[in-house]
Amino acid sequence: MRMVDIIEKKRDGKELNKNEIWWFVEQYTDGKIPDYQASALAMAIYFQDMNQAERAELTLAMAHSGDQIDLSSIAGIKADKHSTGGVGDKTTIALAPLVAAAGVPVAKMSGRGLGHTGGTIDKLEAIPGFSCDMSTDEFIDHVNKNLIAVAGQTGNLTPADKKLYALRDVTGTVNSTALIASSIMSKKIASGADAIVLDVKTGSGAFMKTLDDSVELAQAMVEIGTKVGRKTMAVISDMNQPLGLAVGNALEIKEAVDILKGEGPADVRELCLVLGSHMVYLAKKADSVKAARAKLEEIIDSGQAVDVLKTFIQTQGGDAAIVDDESLYPTAKFQIEVKAEEEGYISEIAANQLGVAAMQLGAGRATKEDEIDLAVGLVLEKKMGDQVRKGDTLVTLHANREDVSEVQQLVLDSYKLVKEEVAKPTLIYKEIYPV
Amino acid sequence: MRMVDIIEKKRDGKELNKNEIWWFVEQYTDGKIPDYQASALAMAIYFQDMNQAERAELTLAMAHSGDQIDLSSIAGIKADKHSTGGVGDKTTIALAPLVAAAGVPVAKMSGRGLGHTGGTIDKLEAIPGFSCDMSTDEFIDHVNKNLIAVAGQTGNLTPADKKLYALRDVTGTVNSTALIASSIMSKKIASGADAIVLDVKTGSGAFMKTLDDSVELAQAMVEIGTKVGRKTMAVISDMNQPLGLAVGNALEIKEAVDILKGEGPADVRELCLVLGSHMVYLAKKADSVKAARAKLEEIIDSGQAVDVLKTFIQTQGGDAAIVDDESLYPTAKFQIEVKAEEEGYISEIAANQLGVAAMQLGAGRATKEDEIDLAVGLVLEKKMGDQVRKGDTLVTLHANREDVSEVQQLVLDSYKLVKEEVAKPTLIYKEIYPV
Repeated sequence: MRMVDIIEKKRDGKELNKNEIWWFVEQYTDGKIPDYQASALAMAIYFQDMNQAERAELTLAMAHSGDQIDLSSIAGIKADKHSTGGVGDKTTIALAPLVAAAGVPVAKMSGRGLGHTGGTIDKLEAIPGFSCDMSTDEFIDHVNKNLIAVAGQTGNLTPADKKLYALRDVTGTVNSTALIASSIMSKKIASGADAIVLDVKTGSGAFMKTLDDSVELAQAMVEIGTKVGRKTMAVISDMNQPLGLAVGNALEIKEAVDILKGEGPADVRELCLVLGSHMVYLAKKADSVKAARAKLEEIIDSGQAVDVLKTFIQTQGGDAAIVDDESLYPTAKFQIEVKAEEEGYISEIAANQLGVAAMQLGAGRATKEDEIDLAVGLVLEKKMGDQVRKGDTLVTLHANREDVSEVQQLVLDSYKLVKEEVAKPTLIYKEIYPV
Repeated sequence: MRMVDIIEKKRDGKELNKNEIWWFVEQYTDGKIPDYQASALAMAIYFQDMNQAERAELTLAMAHSGDQIDLSSIAGIKADKHSTGGVGDKTTIALAPLVAAAGVPVAKMSGRGLGHTGGTIDKLEAIPGFSCDMSTDEFIDHVNKNLIAVAGQTGNLTPADKKLYALRDVTGTVNSTALIASSIMSKKIASGADAIVLDVKTGSGAFMKTLDDSVELAQAMVEIGTKVGRKTMAVISDMNQPLGLAVGNALEIKEAVDILKGEGPADVRELCLVLGSHMVYLAKKADSVKAARAKLEEIIDSGQAVDVLKTFIQTQGGDAAIVDDESLYPTAKFQIEVKAEEEGYISEIAANQLGVAAMQLGAGRATKEDEIDLAVGLVLEKKMGDQVRKGDTLVTLHANREDVSEVQQLVLDSYKLVKEEVAKPTLIYKEIYPV
C-alpha cells in the first residue's frame, strides 16, 4: 500500500476502505507516514468529505491507536458525556454525581488542557485535597463502590488523534465535520463508555457558530457512535452567552455544587437535567427520558445528590465540608465590579471575550506551562435579555491583583445594549438521535 | 504573515496576493515553512486553482528562488523551446542548429534527468568528444560567436520548484494545471530566454492524455509567459505514438542529424519546421511564420543547417566527422528484429511501453545512479496506419546483450493491429497564442 495512492483516491472523491484507513492511522502513529502526506490527505478529506463508513473506521482506528480503558469489570451500562466546549460550562461537575445518584456508573476520564479556565480536573482541584491521580485499579474500584470517579487521562490515549489534531491545527484542516467528529468520538470510544451523551454547543461563543453546522456535527457523531456499537445521542445547547454565571475554577465548582443543592442558575440546572435524563435513560435506569428527569429532580430535592457528591469528594481525598462552607474555597483578594455605562436591554454577550477576560485574570492557561490561579475569574450579574440601568453591575471580577483596567474594559466591551426589549435565548435547540 | 492563514485563504477559494505568494516561496525554499504546510497548500490549490495573476506571481517567485541566467550580453532576441516530454522526442537537437542558422541566438540550458532515454545532454554525449560542461562566460561567448550553445543546467536553478515538485510527487498534487504550468515556466523564465515556444504533447504517450487538458495547460503557460513579459506561444503535437522512428541516445542523434540533412522521418521534420518557424518569427528573423518556414526549408536544402551543426559540434569538443560517417557513433552489438505475428493495420502503438523497452535495454535511467548505454535503443519500422503482414519487422532492437526476450514481448504487446484500414494520426493539433 502506498500513501500517495490513498491521497489520490480520496482527492478524486472515492471511498477509502477499512484497510486503507487503518493502515494510514497505524503507519502515521508509528511515524512511518510523514506529516506532509497526512496533511495532504486531511486537505483532500476537507474537500471530498468521508461517508459514514469511512468516519466510523477512522474513529475506530484512532481509538485503537493507543491505550483503551477497559470498564468491563464495572457492572451496568457506563455513561459518559462530552461537551464541544464553551465558556462557563461546569455541567460535568454537577452531572457526574447527579446521574451516579440515579444508579448510573460514571467512570470519567478528564483533562486539563488550554483555554479560558482550566479543564474539569483543574476545577476539581479547587476543592482542598481533591486529587484525580489514581491507578486504573483504584479508578475501577471507586466506580464499583460509589458509581463515580473522575481520573486524569492516561498518557497514551488516542495518540493518532493527538498527532493528527496538532497537524490539522497548522494546515487549515480543522474545519472538517468528518475529522472533528472522528477526533471527538475516538477519544470517547477509547475511554470505554457504553452510552454517550453529546452536548454540542451552538452560537457566537461556540466552535460551531450556526445551528446548521452544530446539527451536522451532532448527527455525524451520533452516527459514528451508533455505528461502532455505543448508545449515542446529542443535545444542541446555546453558547451565545456563557452558561450560568460563574467563569473561573473555584467559582464554577461553587455553582455546580449549588445545582446539586437545588439552587444555582436556571440554565445550568436545566442543561444538567436534560443531559442527565438522557444518560439515565440510555443507561436503562429509567423507562423514559421523562421518568429519568423526574427521578433526577427527586434526587436533588431529597438531598441524595449532595450525599453522592460528598462521598465522591471524600473518596478522592477532598474536604467535603466545602459543600456546606464556602469559606473553604480558594478566594481572590479583590472583588471589582464592572458597571453599565448606559441603560438598555442586553442583546449580546461575547462569551469568548469574557473567557479571555477570565484567562487574563489567571483562570486559564494560554500555554501548557502556565500556572492556573484557581481562585480568580468573574461572575455575571446580568445576562441576555436583562434590563439594566446606568451604574448597574454587569459583572463582578474576582482578581488577585488590583489593577485590572484592561480586563474591565474587555468585559464592558463584551456587552451590547439596545433600546428595545430582547427575548432570552433558547437554551436547548434540538435533540439528535440515531436515524 | 502566518502560513496557516495563507492555506485557509486558498482553501476558501480566495485569491492570494503577490506578497503572500513570494513570502511562501522564499520561506519554503529557506526551509522555514515545513513540507506539511506546503503540501496542504498544494492540495488546496489543486481544488481551488489559481487565477492568471497568482500563476504569474508563483512562476516569478520560483524563477527568482535561485540563480538566473543573464543573457543580456547576447545581442538579439534569444529563443528557447520546451517540450512537455514524449518518447522519441529529439527535436531540440535538430531545432537548435536549424534556428541558429536562421540568425536566432539559441542559448540552451539542458538536463540529464530520468526516463526512457537520457536527456538532451546525454544524447549529445553520443557524439565522441562532445561536452556540455562550460563556464557561463564560455556559454555566452559560444552563442555570441555561433548563435548556439547547449550547456548543462547550473546547480541552483529554481530550487523552490525542485523542492515543491518533489513534494507534489508524493502528495497527490502533481495534476494541477496551475502548479504544472508555473513549474515549467519558472525554469524557462530563470533560463533567460526572451521568446519561448512550447511543445505540449497530447495523447496516450503524453503526460496530458486528452486534447482538452493539453490545450488548458498550453493556454496557462502562454498566459504566464506573456504576463511576465516573454513572447510565448505553444504548439499542441501528437504523442499517441513515438515521434519519428528512433528511441535511444545515439540512434536519436542520427535521426536529428538526418533532419538537418533534409532526410529523416516526415513527422520529426514537420514538427521541427513548425516549432522552428515560430521561434524564428518570435525572434523577428522573419516577417511571418510562413516566411520563417520557407527560410528554414531553404537553410536545410542549401546545407547551411549542416554547416551550423558541424560548427556547434566542434565548438563543444565533438567530432564533426560523425555527420558524414555514421560508423563513428557508439553502436550496439546486436540488432534483433521484432516481427508481427499477425496481419492488419496498426491502430495503436503504446509509446510509454516502447519507452520502457528502450530503458530496459539500457537507454535510460530509472534512478539517478544508473549508467546510460548510449548505443542501445530501438527503431520503429512501422507506425500507426501502416499495413503489416505476418513476419514483417515492426521494430529493430539495438542491444548489447543477447537475451532480450522480455523486451521483445513488451514491444510486441505495444502494437495493436486491426482488420480495417486506419488513418494516420494528426501531428499538429493546435497552435496557442496569447489572448
